[in-house]
Amino acid sequence: MATIKVHGSVFSSPAMRVFACLHEKDLEFEFIPVDMGTGQHKKEPFLSLNPFGQIPAFEDGDLKLFESRAITQYIAHSYAEKGNQLICHDPKKMAIMSVWMEVEAHQFDPVASKLTWELALKPVFGMVTDGAVVEENEAKLGKVLDVYEARLAQSKYLAGDCFTLADLHHLPNIQYLMGTQSKKLFDSRPHVSAWCADISARPAWLKVVAMRSNK
Amino acid sequence: MATIKVHGSVFSSPAMRVFACLHEKDLEFEFIPVDMGTGQHKKEPFLSLNPFGQIPAFEDGDLKLFESRAITQYIAHSYAEKGNQLICHDPKKMAIMSVWMEVEAHQFDPVASKLTWELALKPVFGMVTDGAVVEENEAKLGKVLDVYEARLAQSKYLAGDCFTLADLHHLPNIQYLMGTQSKKLFDSRPHVSAWCADISARPAWLKVVAMRSNK
Ligand SMILES: N[C@@H](CCC(=O)N[C@@H](CS)C(=O)NCC(=O)O)C(=O)O
Ligand SMILES: N[C@@H](CCC(=O)N[C@@H](CS)C(=O)NCC(=O)O)C(=O)O
Repeated sequence: MATIKVHGSVFSSPAMRVFACLHEKDLEFEFIPVDMGTGQHKKEPFLSLNPFGQIPAFEDGDLKLFESRAITQYIAHSYAEKGNQLICHDPKKMAIMSVWMEVEAHQFDPVASKLTWELALKPVFGMVTDGAVVEENEAKLGKVLDVYEARLAQSKYLAGDCFTLADLHHLPNIQYLMGTQSKKLFDSRPHVSAWCADISARPAWLKVVAMRSNK
Repeated sequence: MATIKVHGSVFSSPAMRVFACLHEKDLEFEFIPVDMGTGQHKKEPFLSLNPFGQIPAFEDGDLKLFESRAITQYIAHSYAEKGNQLICHDPKKMAIMSVWMEVEAHQFDPVASKLTWELALKPVFGMVTDGAVVEENEAKLGKVLDVYEARLAQSKYLAGDCFTLADLHHLPNIQYLMGTQSKKLFDSRPHVSAWCADISARPAWLKVVAMRSNK
């Protein structure tokens, strides 16, 4: 029986971040779907796993965690010797990795998540995309990706020469946006485009995508 | 000459987070004010420190960092032996601390920052507070603080028995909101209220507040 359990959905970006990390680390885990349609995430027993009532929630033996980026950092640190290295150990390199993890969380994700919602998810739920929100956030995402383009002209990955959590955290939104009109923002920037192709082709990420196709 | 430099403003919440961390660690640093009024943060040489054109930016010798929470983590890890401990070293405790750092960034800050802007900063700039935004975000902050109240009934600080970065990161918004009508949301929850009083009275934080009074 797997001691690692992930409660979530294969369509949730934060949950996909955790799945990607577990696959990179070659760790077995049990996936426990949470039925958000019936509000399972807003009731016990789920609220004991995450009092904010959001997916994903994570268990490793008796340790219970939530917030996707806290979970991935725990996995990367605690299972350092398993699978692929996802963090830097040198304090200065670790600091640069932290900068780019914060950039994902505070510069990229707020804008990319809004576009994912408007362009990739609303149509699935039969809801109408708000063109003004798309326009505003595509302009913002373009500016963010200009900074990424300059960064990725200097180093292959965001934190340096190696793939780390700083890159991995971007994958769910990139996967969604590549199926929308916002793809052009990535394609038109050569270093960003090469980086997206590289990280999206990682075997661990393909396993996450396959989890979705099996649904 | 101090090797640590912080570029920012004493009124910026993210910059205050960094000052608080440096004072906790008893580290000398040079504070370099950035004149946002003239758009200094959107021009070189500042953009070489932070390509997103936001304060704070940080230098330690030849290491350049930005994003306040990446900076505080670097300081806490790299100067572990100086001043007060601000992080846990045991992997499971570190994971719990990460969860609450993420909670600050993703649950508390987005809501608290909007209230700080509407209630504490707009009046200073002679702008009109938007009552609807205040009402919506006070309702959200109340729900977030309900979770904090339950957490702080179990442990003195968010990550456990000791003050850590997870608590420290909240200080700037708490400081601002304590001077506004939103104070009631903290005062009406006994454990939250005791926690606010405790962390706001830390000598390192009082030094940050004093930096502002000297302006
Ligand atoms: N910052 C959280 C975000 C989690 C999140 O927003 N999850 C969504 C699903 S993708 C959710 O549970 N939403 C329900 C709600 O917020 O009530 C993380 O990274 O884990
Ligand atoms: N996530 C960043 C936020 C920094 C930030 O928003 N700084 C504000 C001042 S408090 C700023 O420079 N705003 C100017 C801008 O965004 O253009 C951090 O934590 O350092």
